Amino acid sequence: MDERAALRLLDADLPGAGDDAAIVDGLVVTTDMLHEATDFPAGTTRYTAGWRSVGASLSDVAAMGATATCAVAVYAAVELDETELSDFVQGARDVCEAVSAEYVGGDLDTHDEFTTASTAIGRTDDPVLRSGAQPGDLLCVTGELGRSAAAVRLFEAGEVERANDLFCFTPRVETGVALRDSATAMMDSSDGLARSVHQLAEASDCGFELDWDALPVHDVVSEVATDDADRRTLSTYFGEDFELVFTIPEDDLDTARAAASVQITVVGRATEGSDIIADGESVPDRGYTHGDD
Amino acid sequence: MDERAALRLLDADLPGAGDDAAIVDGLVVTTDMLHEATDFPAGTTRYTAGWRSVGASLSDVAAMGATATCAVAVYAAVELDETELSDFVQGARDVCEAVSAEYVGGDLDTHDEFTTASTAIGRTDDPVLRSGAQPGDLLCVTGELGRSAAAVRLFEAGEVERANDLFCFTPRVETGVALRDSATAMMDSSDGLARSVHQLAEASDCGFELDWDALPVHDVVSEVATDDADRRTLSTYFGEDFELVFTIPEDDLDTARAAASVQITVVGRATEGSDIIADGESVPDRGYTHGDD
Repeated sequence: MDERAALRLLDADLPGAGDDAAIVDGLVVTTDMLHEATDFPAGTTRYTAGWRSVGASLSDVAAMGATATCAVAVYAAVELDETELSDFVQGARDVCEAVSAEYVGGDLDTHDEFTTASTAIGRTDDPVLRSGAQPGDLLCVTGELGRSAAAVRLFEAGEVERANDLFCFTPRVETGVALRDSATAMMDSSDGLARSVHQLAEASDCGFELDWDALPVHDVVSEVATDDADRRTLSTYFGEDFELVFTIPEDDLDTARAAASVQITVVGRATEGSDIIADGESVPDRGYTHGDD
Repeated sequence: MDERAALRLLDADLPGAGDDAAIVDGLVVTTDMLHEATDFPAGTTRYTAGWRSVGASLSDVAAMGATATCAVAVYAAVELDETELSDFVQGARDVCEAVSAEYVGGDLDTHDEFTTASTAIGRTDDPVLRSGAQPGDLLCVTGELGRSAAAVRLFEAGEVERANDLFCFTPRVETGVALRDSATAMMDSSDGLARSVHQLAEASDCGFELDWDALPVHDVVSEVATDDADRRTLSTYFGEDFELVFTIPEDDLDTARAAASVQITVVGRATEGSDIIADGESVPDRGYTHGDD
């Protein structure tokens, strides 16, 4: 059973589960485990690990259009080194501060492999789900894609400082809140844009037409990509970018752009049916799946 | 650096951290990581693991005198087996149901070692901290001690069914809520009674006199203990029992007992100074510490 099949099982009849975060009683709650082998390339500082672990959960809060209240994290390492732990906590605190949330501590554990588990909590009485896209809505993304994929390449190349900088993304909480009255469906791009669009399509029972050339690709991607196909893989399939992917009625776009604190790019449109098409070709449902590693 | 030193570092200047759960904005939040090597003896079913992981976090909510709202859990295993995952989720759901909370899903991961990370959220506007004990207050515990320690012995002896039953404890949420107006300090006994009392003493700036003979020890402890010293270790130092340890003014005891849904036993009294004494001898600050494993 791969992770997606297992997630479906996990969510089968849980009320409030199955979106980026669970919804319960005016709260949104989301939890993520990250670990060294799959999530922290050699060279990732503990500061970056703290930022990124907690940031991944805060991104899920953002994807619900919720304000971020607080986060906790478990830090599990082979040894509990004081400097490493302090750095981790500082990264966790800083990413919380970046979205006006409070980092309120967590748990510690010793473990064979450096592992983190973070949980973020947000508030909203009217969450934006994945399921509201209507044919004709514009498909948009915030910021730029490919940032994390490019960072992994930089880690491999030994450009550790730049890679760490790129790994410390700002969760789009402020923008998520700004979009909550106009976005019809929303999620984050943690599994890659391609998979995100497939997930929006499935939840909203629609299709999408994408324009590859419209994708806002981070400058570093061109620098590290070997060719156009590689550039596509890094920007579209790798994921872990934690941008918002959302749909919005065309008439609301200008207002949304004015309200959002980051760049919003139109990358396609929701359609009738269930096909996901870009430039006349089917877009594979391929992306980041832990179970496939 | 052992786990306790690291926890102090983690909590050094975090507002709302350092008690059984963090407090933020009317919520209490707590997270715990458990893993096979230290927390799930051979024979522990996935149902029990789900119950116990989420239960450990709900116990921290109980220790704040809060109602339990919801819980999430990360399930990380070597392989994602459908039956095992279903069993885990059922255990998690059942322990939530036992305390009127909602289990709202979580995350999945593949990992070298079976590992869980659970987070529970509760609500209270007036949390019971560890820091309010006054000299003269009675020291009390709920339920019976030694249950988990005895279960570990039963796992070792191959009595897996009884051991799993003992491992599935009921978090004392209902009792915690019943005690919140009268308890002056409260925590759970997850690190063992001895360590809990030391922690209450440190937070409340007081000492304690305990009466060993008054301790409510679970029947199974006598069955598995090799002698009196072993019995003491299992009931007092092993921990992981998830009972409430609290202080209360003597005049409020009868009312508290009437309100609580479980047995409450007086095991000592808060004193001036900082000594922890039982039957005239100093009680060592010894208990369950992951970092010591």
